[in-house]
Amino acid sequence: MHAVTVVPGQAGSAAWTHVPEPSAELGSVVVQALAVGVCGTDAEIAAGQYGWAPPGKDRLVLGHESLGRVVQAGGGLTVGDHVVGIVRRPDPVPCANCAVGEWDMCSNGRYTEHGIKERDGFMAERWRSDPDYLVKVDPDLGASAVLLEPASIVTKAWEHVYAIGQRTFWDPRHVLVVGAGPIGLLAALLGTQRGLDVHVLDRVTSGPKPQLVEALGAHYHTGAIPDLDLSPDIVIECTGVPALIRQSAESVAPGGIVCLTGVGPQNQSAGGIESGLATAAVLRNLAVFGSVNANRRHYYLAARALGRADRDWLAALLTRRFTPDDIGLALDRDADDIKVVVEFAT
Amino acid sequence: MHAVTVVPGQAGSAAWTHVPEPSAELGSVVVQALAVGVCGTDAEIAAGQYGWAPPGKDRLVLGHESLGRVVQAGGGLTVGDHVVGIVRRPDPVPCANCAVGEWDMCSNGRYTEHGIKERDGFMAERWRSDPDYLVKVDPDLGASAVLLEPASIVTKAWEHVYAIGQRTFWDPRHVLVVGAGPIGLLAALLGTQRGLDVHVLDRVTSGPKPQLVEALGAHYHTGAIPDLDLSPDIVIECTGVPALIRQSAESVAPGGIVCLTGVGPQNQSAGGIESGLATAAVLRNLAVFGSVNANRRHYYLAARALGRADRDWLAALLTRRFTPDDIGLALDRDADDIKVVVEFAT
Repeated sequence: MHAVTVVPGQAGSAAWTHVPEPSAELGSVVVQALAVGVCGTDAEIAAGQYGWAPPGKDRLVLGHESLGRVVQAGGGLTVGDHVVGIVRRPDPVPCANCAVGEWDMCSNGRYTEHGIKERDGFMAERWRSDPDYLVKVDPDLGASAVLLEPASIVTKAWEHVYAIGQRTFWDPRHVLVVGAGPIGLLAALLGTQRGLDVHVLDRVTSGPKPQLVEALGAHYHTGAIPDLDLSPDIVIECTGVPALIRQSAESVAPGGIVCLTGVGPQNQSAGGIESGLATAAVLRNLAVFGSVNANRRHYYLAARALGRADRDWLAALLTRRFTPDDIGLALDRDADDIKVVVEFAT
Repeated sequence: MHAVTVVPGQAGSAAWTHVPEPSAELGSVVVQALAVGVCGTDAEIAAGQYGWAPPGKDRLVLGHESLGRVVQAGGGLTVGDHVVGIVRRPDPVPCANCAVGEWDMCSNGRYTEHGIKERDGFMAERWRSDPDYLVKVDPDLGASAVLLEPASIVTKAWEHVYAIGQRTFWDPRHVLVVGAGPIGLLAALLGTQRGLDVHVLDRVTSGPKPQLVEALGAHYHTGAIPDLDLSPDIVIECTGVPALIRQSAESVAPGGIVCLTGVGPQNQSAGGIESGLATAAVLRNLAVFGSVNANRRHYYLAARALGRADRDWLAALLTRRFTPDDIGLALDRDADDIKVVVEFAT
């Protein structure tokens, strides 16, 4: 069979290559790929910035935002079920967090991740998994179910926002989402599902983003955060841009919460936190937190959230579709792209 | 009678001045001052940096870390009771947080504060209060009960640390306290009372601080945080120094919590949060939060914590004592000072 593979650390090595069928030891369930979402992590791995092949292998199968159809049953799954694979796996000798099923909060870094770290990804015609690491999704979602993995990240972020909010009396009304990429738009979706007044800020003034935001009943903005005349109770920051993180901390209401989901440019790490943050955080009782990855609970809740969403709205997030042999084109981001998807022949 | 008063905004105006007896409208309980702690806020007000006199007045009575003896009873208090006054008061038209008694998380900034903002402080021979804003303390604590107000700040910080910790599975073992001033030492005390392995970092190598830390069964360190070879689950940062905040975020364990209690130099606000924080916070699931002020619950819990502490250890925090007419000397900090106290003749 074929898969999109890379040589980790080698820029430009992404290719649609011949690979062996997945071995039985990888799990009892065989899944035929339907689609795989492409994200910034894939582009960075394809650019040779990081990525780790499975032990003893030179090439890593790319892709962690999966959607497939069960072709060999196992566990509670039957042939024809649509499933998404959970990205992160605990180490066989788990840390305390991994042992209790919260591998998204792994405390020793010895996890593996499909398509990223020491475990093949999902851009293969067929892949295998233990049934425990598959989440069944409504086939009615179609290709939009490929959004489950990013939605699980956002589900975890929202869960932590509300958990942290409970440190005191808290009655949030207004949320600002910074960045209208897939994470930002899904964060806005979940914000509206929670009944909040949702505002989304991005750079672009045209293309699908403004309409997608307004279709949720949310408000679309461009420009600088201080110009919005908004004092949000929650900011979900999805860009990682230092100036926007700073503006987020400065604009959030007293006692508010800023959730950082974007890492931003890696080569600007000379800065660090400075006294502007300390002043804002202390005097206004702010909690700033980071969020990465998601555990099984977040996948299940994300599936519920996608199931409640408008199908056309979800489908409109998939702005371009490629066949896997065009992986080079798929990795080349366009300004109006929200989610690029690699689709497999079925 | 006399009180230590300042003209807000006028440096060097702190003086032991004649003032009228407190008017009955300020509350049914009359308290004779025993002692008042001096902190950085008092020094900044005395330096004219901020401070607001009560409406219609030119001078503000200084002091918010109080201890006194009831001389006219009211509420559930009787003559002779030792009491501490709660610093912050909600506005008569309270915000939602103030309405539920959580004025430490006031969301509109319209609170008043004894000795700081629009309400006379406690460095007066006698003062009055509603019984609802007085916390009874064990007379056995002696002058050490003047530590209740800073202990309430620390109690709130610890409460929020544990509340935020509950966003996921969390089993903290090690805490780093940065700065061994009164807030840092009381944070260390409460950390040991919670059974944690407590480490305290400060600049000084001599004086009382190292012994006070070791007397708690905690570990005293100097130097840079990365050199400690410690990956704390919790950092309580009490200095506000940007480099130490940055090192705190970089050293804390994955999923850890950094609590900022110090504001630090105000004139360095050009910086803000940068991508170093974003990377650390996101990839390691960090929560960074700020904490200011304390509500009634925190005062009560702080009184319990001080009650459980060794009396000699507490008394050793009071490094110098002055009479109120020497307020100029009391405001002039010494390198070895922990808590300077103004004591009143009784």
